[in-house]
Order: sequence, then C-alpha cells, then structure tokens
Amino acid sequence: MQKKVVLTGDRPTGPLHLGHYVGSLRSRLEYESISQQFVMIADAQALTDHAKDPEKVRKAVTTVMLDYLAVGLLPKKTTFFIQSRVRPLPELFMYYLNLVTWNRLKHNPTVKAEIQQKNFGQSVPAGFMTYPIAQAADITAFRATHVPVGEDQKPMLEQTNELVRTFNKTYDTDVLIEVKGVIPKVARLPGIDGQAKMGKSLNNAIFLSDSMDAVEKKVKKMYTDPNHLRVEDPGQVEGNPVFAYLDAFSTDTQKVEDLKAHYRKGGLGDSKVKQYLLEVLEAFLAPIQRRRKEWEADLSEPWRILREGSLAAEAVAEETLALVKKAMCLDYPI
Amino acid sequence: MQKKVVLTGDRPTGPLHLGHYVGSLRSRLEYESISQQFVMIADAQALTDHAKDPEKVRKAVTTVMLDYLAVGLLPKKTTFFIQSRVRPLPELFMYYLNLVTWNRLKHNPTVKAEIQQKNFGQSVPAGFMTYPIAQAADITAFRATHVPVGEDQKPMLEQTNELVRTFNKTYDTDVLIEVKGVIPKVARLPGIDGQAKMGKSLNNAIFLSDSMDAVEKKVKKMYTDPNHLRVEDPGQVEGNPVFAYLDAFSTDTQKVEDLKAHYRKGGLGDSKVKQYLLEVLEAFLAPIQRRRKEWEADLSEPWRILREGSLAAEAVAEETLALVKKAMCLDYPI
Repeated sequence: MQKKVVLTGDRPTGPLHLGHYVGSLRSRLEYESISQQFVMIADAQALTDHAKDPEKVRKAVTTVMLDYLAVGLLPKKTTFFIQSRVRPLPELFMYYLNLVTWNRLKHNPTVKAEIQQKNFGQSVPAGFMTYPIAQAADITAFRATHVPVGEDQKPMLEQTNELVRTFNKTYDTDVLIEVKGVIPKVARLPGIDGQAKMGKSLNNAIFLSDSMDAVEKKVKKMYTDPNHLRVEDPGQVEGNPVFAYLDAFSTDTQKVEDLKAHYRKGGLGDSKVKQYLLEVLEAFLAPIQRRRKEWEADLSEPWRILREGSLAAEAVAEETLALVKKAMCLDYPI
Repeated sequence: MQKKVVLTGDRPTGPLHLGHYVGSLRSRLEYESISQQFVMIADAQALTDHAKDPEKVRKAVTTVMLDYLAVGLLPKKTTFFIQSRVRPLPELFMYYLNLVTWNRLKHNPTVKAEIQQKNFGQSVPAGFMTYPIAQAADITAFRATHVPVGEDQKPMLEQTNELVRTFNKTYDTDVLIEVKGVIPKVARLPGIDGQAKMGKSLNNAIFLSDSMDAVEKKVKKMYTDPNHLRVEDPGQVEGNPVFAYLDAFSTDTQKVEDLKAHYRKGGLGDSKVKQYLLEVLEAFLAPIQRRRKEWEADLSEPWRILREGSLAAEAVAEETLALVKKAMCLDYPI
C-alpha cells in the first residue's frame, strides 16, 4: 500500500493554543512518523479575511512556526512550508476556478457559516468566497490522500473532490486524486470560560507560548461548575473545563477518575483540582517552552527550515502543475 | 515625459479577421514605434469560458501569433508573450481577489452583458466572473499606462483602477499605477452579412488567413443595400458593408468618394463595387499572406519569439510582484 500523504496546516493569525494541540498538533506528531506530512503555514489564505492586517499575518508566521517546533514536530519528518512561497498554488487555483460555478461557491455550507460569523455583511471579499477552490489547489498540488478536518469543514473536502472529478472528466485524465477527511478523536477543547470552543479571538485560550505565570492566572479564573459553591457540595464534572483539560493532558488516568468521583460526591474544592491541573499543564508545557527557547535563540534556523521545506513542497507542486497543464493542453513547446 | 506602456492582446479562440485589424492590430502597428508595447496571447483568459475546449485554445495560440507576425508587428519592437507563461499573474490575481467584494464582481456591466451573450444560464464559471480581476493583474503587472479598449470594455478598466486605488490605500503604498483607456478611431467593422460586428462565432468574418478564393467568395455574397435592386436604382452607402470596407482598406480616398456618389445617384452595380473591393482587399492581404508563409515555414521561430517575449514579460511582472508582496508584508527573509 502506498504511504499516506497528509496535508495540514494553520492560518497564521496568532499564536497556537491548547485547543490546537488537542485538535491537530497532537495528531501531527503521530502522522509525521507514519505518513508523508506537509504542514502549511497558510498566509495567503489568512489574507483572504485579513487583507487589511498583513503585519499580523506576517508576525504570526514566525509564531506559528515556533509553535510547531516547540511541540516537537521534526523538520526531518515533516515538510514545513509557507503557502505564498509555492508558486504553482495560485496557478492551479486560477485554472480550477473555471471548473466551478459561481452559484456552487455561494452554497458551500462552511463558507456560509463563516460569513455569518465574520460579519462581512454585504462586503464578502471575493478571495474569501473562492478560498475553497484555493484549498482544492493546496490539497491536489501535494497529491494529499488524507486531510485532518473538523466536522464543520467536511464540505470543503467535498468541494475539493467534486473539483477533482470535474477536472479528470473534463480533461479525460486521472492526474488529480480524491482526498479523504480524517476527523480527529478529540475534536475540541472548551475555552477557560466554559465556551465550547477555545479560540484566539474569543479571549478564552491558554497559548502554548504563555508564561507559567500567565497559565496560573488563567487556570485560577477558569470557569467550573457554577453550582459548586461550597467545598462540601457535590460538583458536576460534565461541561466543567477543568476536568476536560485533565482528561486531555493528565497522564495519570486513574488519578483523574478518582478526582472526578470525589468532586461528584462533594468535599473536593475547585482550588485543589485547579492546583493539580496547573501541575499537569506545567509538566506538559515545560518541554514545549524549553524547545521554544532553543529555537528562538537563533531565528535563522526556523527560517532555513521553512526555506528548505518551501522548496521541497514547491518541487512536488510543480510536478502536479506540469501534469495539470499538460492535461489542459498548456504544455507549449517553449 | 515617461514613455507610454501599452498592454493589449487577444483571447486565442480562433484566427484574427479584418475586424481585429481595424479595431486593434492597426493601432498596434503604430504603438510599437511610439511606446513600449506588450501583446499578450491570453490563453488563461480564453479558458475562463472555454475550459472544456482546451485544444481549440491551444491551436489558436499558434494561429494568433502567426496573425501578429503576418500583419507586420515586429518582435524587436513589441514584446509578445503567452499569459499562462507569466507566473506572477495568477499570484497577483489571487491577492487582488481579497480586495474586491463578491457583490462588486456581480455588478460589472461588461461581465453582465457577456454572461447574457454566452448563455451560461445558472452555470457561470467562477473564473469567468472573476476575470476582470485577472485583467487587473495583467494590466498592473506590466505597469501599463494605456490599454486600448472598446467602448463596451471601459468598465473593465474602471474595475482595475478601483483596485489600484484600494491596494495602494490598504497597503499605504504607490506601487500600483492607474491606467488610461484608449478608444480606437475606427471602433468596429461590420460583418459581411451587414451585422454591426464582425465576429468569429457570428460566421460573418473575413480572416487575415483566408485564401484569396475564400475572400472572393465572401465578397461576392456580401450584404449590400437590399433596396438596390437594379443597377440604375439609387443605392444607400450608409450601413452598406461594402463601402465600410472600402473606407477602412482603400488607400484611394477620392476614388471611394466618387464610387459613393455614383452609387447614391444610381447606375453603379454592386458587382462593380465588389470587384473594386476585392482588388483593394487583395492588395491589403497580399503582404500579410506573404509574411505568414515565411513565418509558417519554420514554426520554431515564432515559438522562439514567444519564449523570449514571455521571459521578458515575466521579468517585468516579477518586479511588480516583488513590490506588491513587500507592500503586503510577504517579503520573508528566505
């Protein structure tokens, strides 16, 4: 069987947090050993809804790359690259736009939901409306077989596969391949405020780059069971982010189960559980922060990795583009 | 004063005809001496509404290039290039898409009219809907100061200039420059059937590459004044394509005026006027066909010109892209 080719990545719009770790970084640490993994810093995609804030995107490229290296992803195993440095991607995007109708783009459920969230009103950028096709370019360029996605992003992959089929049929070829979505086991970590999702813009995140002081402050003000007023009261574990974090990060499952039982019965105060969570998070974050410090000491090294990764990624994408252009009769004798 | 930079070109979808000569090729012969002229074979743009017919586009690239050389445009004076060979163009296109709203694209009058003509129905390709932005990429990439356009295409340049202003404002820069439209003196040659416009798809064109036999047949069946039934009847010159062609191609203005007067008065038969038109067209086409034969004898030469022109065009576009990426903070240290 052929090796899996995994394409994944992030829009560089700010530092990565524990939610990213649970939702994607953790599985990337597994994928890099069992598949060929491309991790893309999607700066061009970030600009589709941050066109007016390019400094933010630029700054986050470094931040996100340091986050990747800090969690222990290995440049020898994973190909890290910057989207805007891979020239075939906009070319594929442009050709693919001819194979999808304007109406189809309007009806992409993921994009529709995101437009609501982002309050674009009547001013949805054309680049945002068409970004599913840019994603199809990314995915097909690297001949990715698997893309990790959240449940809400499955329509994006359907759009890609629809395009793959249309392209292959229109040009009577098989150069593009369909992709499978991989839904991560733990989909989502709640925010420290108890909201279902941890998010940069929701102001409820613990970042991988937070100082231990900052982590302590965030854990202390963390939302718990609002009805658990006195230590002796029985408390609720479900929907209680403190326990969700323990499930995600403690390596001592038995201890977590014991704490849950005690909390449910009553007699266990929030501050005690939070103290343990703090220890767990410190143990989890310590090596991450140590590695970050090492990489930060000489930024030319992460940039060298990105340069080499981008060139390697571009070489693969060039092969795909050559096949695509040949299928489209654009392979001129010059 | 800085030299004018003119960008012009054609979608390669078939051979060029007399209408192209009058509407654009003739002015290109003037521009190439007094300005820096880029002539683009817009294969990528042709694919926005010919995605399913790439062979046709491919074939027409050669045809159109031979038409250019046949009419006497000079590779030493004009830079000929193939759009899909200039890599910065799709990149600029992609970044520009973030600066225009989806709604704005829907309201481009030229695109709206073309959608009607092309009978796309509910299936307008996204690439077609966004091609004004691809045109903005073309125009700005070469820092064109002047673009020859028909009256009906002025909204395209407005879209480009709107984008130039938005880009420069958003990124607090002046790297992009606005362009001026140049409306040609003789806007349009009627078809041989008397329709206002000569067009490949209207089946009413005399092509620059038509054999003299074919030209003779077309002139013989040419539409004239339908009320001019007998030689002695007075005839109408206005709206009579035979006279429109004489105005456009005869070098003997006095003779044309005399014929018009005679025709109006009565006593001049269509066949006599057509005989003269045939002589005029033969004289006009003879050097064009001679040059075509020469270039056709060794196609590697036109391809060499296109290769060199495409590289020269790409070098200019790369400079623009570098400035654009710097303005957008995409100039990474790698």
